Amino acid sequence: MKTNTLTPELLQKIDAYWCAANYLSVGQIYLFDNPLLKRPLLLSDIKHMLLGHWGTTPGQNFIYVHLNRIIKKFDLDMIYVSGPGHGGPAVVANTYLEGTYSEIYPDISQDEAGLQKLFLQFSFPGGIPSHASPECPGSIHEGGELGYSLSHSFGAVFDNPDLIVACCVGDGEAETGPLATAWQSNKFLDPITDGAVLPILHLNGYKIANPTVLARIEPEELDQFLRGNGWTPYYVEGHEPALMHEAMAATLDVVVEEIQRIRHEARVNGNTMRPRWPMIVLKSPKGWTGPTWVDGLQIEGTFRAHQVPLSDPSAHPENLKLLENWLRSYRPEELFDAEGKLKPELAELAPKGDRRMGANPHANGGMLLHDLIMPDFRNYAVNVPSPGSVKASDAHELGVFLRDVVKLNLEQRNFRIFGPDETLSNRLGAVFEVTNRQWDAREQDNDEFLAPDGRVMEMLSEHQCEGWLEGYLLTGRHGLFNCYEAFIHIIDSMFNQHAKWLKVTAGLAWRRPIASLNYLLASHVWQQMHNGFTHQDPGFIDHVVNKKASVVRVYLAPDANCLLSIWDHCLRSRHYVNVVIAGKYQAPQWLTMEEAIKHCTAGIGIWQWASCDAGVEPDVVMACCGDVPTLETLAAVSILRGRLPDLKVRVVNVVDLMKLQPQLEHPHGMSDTDFDTLFTKDKPVIFAFHAYPWLIHRLTYRRTNHDNIHVRGYKEEGTITTPFDMTVLNDLDRFHLVMDAIDRLPQTGDLGISLKRDLKDKLVEHRLYINKYGQDMPEIRNWKWQG
Amino acid sequence: MKTNTLTPELLQKIDAYWCAANYLSVGQIYLFDNPLLKRPLLLSDIKHMLLGHWGTTPGQNFIYVHLNRIIKKFDLDMIYVSGPGHGGPAVVANTYLEGTYSEIYPDISQDEAGLQKLFLQFSFPGGIPSHASPECPGSIHEGGELGYSLSHSFGAVFDNPDLIVACCVGDGEAETGPLATAWQSNKFLDPITDGAVLPILHLNGYKIANPTVLARIEPEELDQFLRGNGWTPYYVEGHEPALMHEAMAATLDVVVEEIQRIRHEARVNGNTMRPRWPMIVLKSPKGWTGPTWVDGLQIEGTFRAHQVPLSDPSAHPENLKLLENWLRSYRPEELFDAEGKLKPELAELAPKGDRRMGANPHANGGMLLHDLIMPDFRNYAVNVPSPGSVKASDAHELGVFLRDVVKLNLEQRNFRIFGPDETLSNRLGAVFEVTNRQWDAREQDNDEFLAPDGRVMEMLSEHQCEGWLEGYLLTGRHGLFNCYEAFIHIIDSMFNQHAKWLKVTAGLAWRRPIASLNYLLASHVWQQMHNGFTHQDPGFIDHVVNKKASVVRVYLAPDANCLLSIWDHCLRSRHYVNVVIAGKYQAPQWLTMEEAIKHCTAGIGIWQWASCDAGVEPDVVMACCGDVPTLETLAAVSILRGRLPDLKVRVVNVVDLMKLQPQLEHPHGMSDTDFDTLFTKDKPVIFAFHAYPWLIHRLTYRRTNHDNIHVRGYKEEGTITTPFDMTVLNDLDRFHLVMDAIDRLPQTGDLGISLKRDLKDKLVEHRLYINKYGQDMPEIRNWKWQG
Repeated sequence: MKTNTLTPELLQKIDAYWCAANYLSVGQIYLFDNPLLKRPLLLSDIKHMLLGHWGTTPGQNFIYVHLNRIIKKFDLDMIYVSGPGHGGPAVVANTYLEGTYSEIYPDISQDEAGLQKLFLQFSFPGGIPSHASPECPGSIHEGGELGYSLSHSFGAVFDNPDLIVACCVGDGEAETGPLATAWQSNKFLDPITDGAVLPILHLNGYKIANPTVLARIEPEELDQFLRGNGWTPYYVEGHEPALMHEAMAATLDVVVEEIQRIRHEARVNGNTMRPRWPMIVLKSPKGWTGPTWVDGLQIEGTFRAHQVPLSDPSAHPENLKLLENWLRSYRPEELFDAEGKLKPELAELAPKGDRRMGANPHANGGMLLHDLIMPDFRNYAVNVPSPGSVKASDAHELGVFLRDVVKLNLEQRNFRIFGPDETLSNRLGAVFEVTNRQWDAREQDNDEFLAPDGRVMEMLSEHQCEGWLEGYLLTGRHGLFNCYEAFIHIIDSMFNQHAKWLKVTAGLAWRRPIASLNYLLASHVWQQMHNGFTHQDPGFIDHVVNKKASVVRVYLAPDANCLLSIWDHCLRSRHYVNVVIAGKYQAPQWLTMEEAIKHCTAGIGIWQWASCDAGVEPDVVMACCGDVPTLETLAAVSILRGRLPDLKVRVVNVVDLMKLQPQLEHPHGMSDTDFDTLFTKDKPVIFAFHAYPWLIHRLTYRRTNHDNIHVRGYKEEGTITTPFDMTVLNDLDRFHLVMDAIDRLPQTGDLGISLKRDLKDKLVEHRLYINKYGQDMPEIRNWKWQG
Repeated sequence: MKTNTLTPELLQKIDAYWCAANYLSVGQIYLFDNPLLKRPLLLSDIKHMLLGHWGTTPGQNFIYVHLNRIIKKFDLDMIYVSGPGHGGPAVVANTYLEGTYSEIYPDISQDEAGLQKLFLQFSFPGGIPSHASPECPGSIHEGGELGYSLSHSFGAVFDNPDLIVACCVGDGEAETGPLATAWQSNKFLDPITDGAVLPILHLNGYKIANPTVLARIEPEELDQFLRGNGWTPYYVEGHEPALMHEAMAATLDVVVEEIQRIRHEARVNGNTMRPRWPMIVLKSPKGWTGPTWVDGLQIEGTFRAHQVPLSDPSAHPENLKLLENWLRSYRPEELFDAEGKLKPELAELAPKGDRRMGANPHANGGMLLHDLIMPDFRNYAVNVPSPGSVKASDAHELGVFLRDVVKLNLEQRNFRIFGPDETLSNRLGAVFEVTNRQWDAREQDNDEFLAPDGRVMEMLSEHQCEGWLEGYLLTGRHGLFNCYEAFIHIIDSMFNQHAKWLKVTAGLAWRRPIASLNYLLASHVWQQMHNGFTHQDPGFIDHVVNKKASVVRVYLAPDANCLLSIWDHCLRSRHYVNVVIAGKYQAPQWLTMEEAIKHCTAGIGIWQWASCDAGVEPDVVMACCGDVPTLETLAAVSILRGRLPDLKVRVVNVVDLMKLQPQLEHPHGMSDTDFDTLFTKDKPVIFAFHAYPWLIHRLTYRRTNHDNIHVRGYKEEGTITTPFDMTVLNDLDRFHLVMDAIDRLPQTGDLGISLKRDLKDKLVEHRLYINKYGQDMPEIRNWKWQG
């Protein structure tokens, strides 16, 4: 390693800049006033509630100033991802120092008044959080929940061949599962068409109260671990600032040159061998440069530096002096001029304009967002001469459409499909006619649909799929995540954090809207023939609708044409989370494309062709939502119409679940009048629902006719069996639906009683048949809508 | 490596046993009848629906027969965890061959009739799943959702010093986050007091349709990866059965001797250096011994072997012959006698009695379950002279109780506390008076509360905490998981699978009940002062109540004495999931221990001391559930009683959330009469709830007075701020609650109107004050219940 990368003057300046960032960080945690320490520190200068985190901050400040140097030196296009928890003070301090913070928030000006506001707002009621939150320019990763920094970073560099994401990985964060598997992302990165991720494992040794695993294994093991994950680690280790500055600078020169060498090798020399990308291990004390000992206990370099090292000076007056000494140790008078502005010789260390990491447009992806080039989805219509007359796989038809979305956007390279090895299983195989799965590890005979730069990303990790996709969207591109319905719960908490990010950024005018996060759940609860109980869980919807109504949308497609219409909408939409549930097996098709568009635009509607209530109030409303419930409802209606010909039956189908909510609760919600018109004010409603039944009650409890809504859905009964038998086990099948209706229609009298008796026999017959033959009775398998 | 571990005779027998297991596996996937192939295979012998998975099966059969050998050779106490998806045929075949299957299911007898049933039930409607499901003896890990095999295995061996868990890890599964971090579990394993996990990484190269990452990196990288995770890998690689049998046998001898050496070194020689535990990498073809080529495509050794290699013979008649050849390639006539019983010279290869992996009691943990020795929780009571007169941290008080639970059970070593570095943060620090965190990596100065065999397990991975705890419970021990409320969503899907496991095993008489899975969520949505929005999510309850009512219980403690009473119950309970939410900050205490016991036993009740409706119907019911809502409700009641003295107010507090559901929906549900008695039939109910408000509607929509229940709860508003301000941001604060009541009480007239006006002013005053000083107004901070 060279030892003279930095001239003494530059080293001194870099150290001063680092001191400035550290000073601003401590100021954010403590200071209510007196931001430049122009007078001795008083108790009244200190915030009442001391909330914040020091531990990770000086290390991240150190990284940031050094990244600034190499961005300038190599004219790099680089953004920064702050992985460790509570790195807020560092990213706020640095984006303030480089000027972006004040450009976005002019009241946080580059002077004493601005400094005071900068300090006050941090971890203060109504202020900004202690994470790299959306309010902070340059951030695409809040890090409030740990583990997703590397996945987000890779998502950001896909299809951004000139971008480098410097990703600080906390050694606490590194213990999480998602981070542990994200090291492997380099098997899915093409050095030609993708950018580079530079992980900086920040080994400061401790999480909240414990040492970290990676800090307490042998150095040789750590080296093996990182190399085994496909990386070439470079080590920067120590605590003496001057030595550390030189080591970090020299190492960054080496790794940037190595990244450039890898790119040249691949892009110019055509070497397609998977490179061992460089990374840095930065081993520095937790709470570096902070108080070393307090009350006889070591602070710097221990877990005790995690939060606020010097506790409340009002209760511990001696800490006021210690704090003042600590703040003055950074010599603020040498860093800022009398007005409070960073001195120009230091300010010049930061890159200029969009090269500043806080101003890089990749970190405000909406600025770079281009619309997808969309094929006309009407061209993919399934021909439906009459309802139920043809069968198709809804997901397959969607796959053909998605194939052409991929194709049309191959050139602008801003659309990808993510999934845990389920794109074929979810019947989207048509996309492989025009693209492949991206795979940059070894290939061998018999591999199918692999290429170094495919548009489909498949790793058997829902966390990676979600994290990559989020990173891809946050940097201004488009995509979807296709997943088994039950296993999307694996990323429940990641969805939470993304939905929260969307909610907050929607309120920040300078943050431009990004493409929606789109889920396709195409292997759903009712279609787990060979997987059974463990694969049956439709509860993701319940989880999703807890988040802000302004952000979440849920669609259940009854057939392929509706599914196409829904996806055309989702792929054009912005700043939502769209959850789409669809079937993948051959199933009857109900609507022509024209009808489907009308139905999906309304989101809910009467299926007149299936109803027999022309012009009058029905006796009963048979409502359905989801493909399998729709099929069973129509079969039930067939029975009702055949056996109880005088009964006036209305069929209502729901595509856009949020239509059911009151207008005040969700922007898609129907008015009470419209709801009453569809569902009547007092007639029984038999509602066949895809998911857990109580969700319908939750959405409709304020509606006039709520007491008459009887919902069937999944109730945790099931096993290896046919989709029809699944409905039987959960009382959602046609026979139960008819019996439910009769129970609420005393006017059906003897006819109803006799029909119920027949249906009970049918259920027995079904059970005997399926137990014997392992499949449904022919009358079920061959059932067709007759109208 | 030795090359004569197996005599030719033994090698031949092991191979034959393997063939028998493979034959039974293929039979399970295909055969409806003709189980011994006594006659040529006919189409009618084949199941109608071919559902199942072959790919992983022959490899797992291979592992199982070799584990049988070393169990016998070394008299090992060993169980098997099947990590790869869809290993069902293998574990079913092997537990059948060793006899345990027929002992548990006598109708699946050791003869031709039994074989026919064994085959038919597999992946057949109403039969058994294709995973190592609860129905399969010897299983503690279903593996329907991938990623938890290693965590479960480690949980099983904690405090089982003689146990070895042989854990087959799929190379697809190895891509998941939870599995990736679980390799690090060896830093939390004490060779003296814990058993050993023997991971067998099954590198068969493919997941569903893709190659796997670990199979496509360089051998040197894989070696580094495993060593970097602290393991010493031994490789068994090839496809020629005879060579592979010898290699596997020799390797297993080596690794078992290595485990014994490590134990001896630690237990006898007192060497406490963290050992590098041995593991095996088994590289064998996917679908090994199955069809090699079909329709011009290679099957064996490719992803195409994943499911059913020969598709439906009714559509592809040529496949019938191929299938028959495949089945006959195992020479069933040499393996089974004419009655269909495994020949005795093969049967003797399996261990005897409880040494059989299917019969080992560790895999039916309820059989080994001992009650915890419990201190009398009444002794930990907070002294509450009158309601609200003292403050305490509920979680801290619980910690003192848990300390003594730990202490009393130190000797029987069957209780552990799990959490992601949050035991101190969650205020349970008292436990460190009697125990430590288990930590078997390097220690250094300034570490606190670490020891090689502590009772507290902290790794910054909710997946590991959950997986370890599940493994610990499933093998007959007790424990709890303490976690930040928002981040418990990280293991939503793991909870799902465990709840499903509990539901299914509750229906299997031979499976004994296990200790409940207990969650303590003590850093909850309202108390995230320095963490903010990302740390605010009370939705785990919504997720939990979707699962079977027979399994799930939810408790919200209003104070410390209630919390103690709840935990006494939870730690004694069996086969539930108990979710307990509690505060951790100093807060007013309401009930004496005697009152708390009465209140928690009822689960819900009128707080008469806070009400002023003696002997008559109230004008309004002020209901509350959760510590912060209870505080705000009581403060609201103070205001109401002070300003509207004629108003008859009733306070109802809910501890056991499931009390709200109808009796028919949940075993804890109240009768409608009781509900009406508490909540009246027609009076307004202002319900202050800890979590998302609609959950209360979902639970109560069938109740008489539902239309008058007005719920306040968390609605995704929040930031860094005080708990009180959090309630203001979400309209749950005392002032909003009073205004809500007045809005529904027109009889309060001018007094009400004037009170509302004053409260609006209060809210403005609050906002101004907190924005200025960063803390609540003195009247909020100093508020006390006056009665």
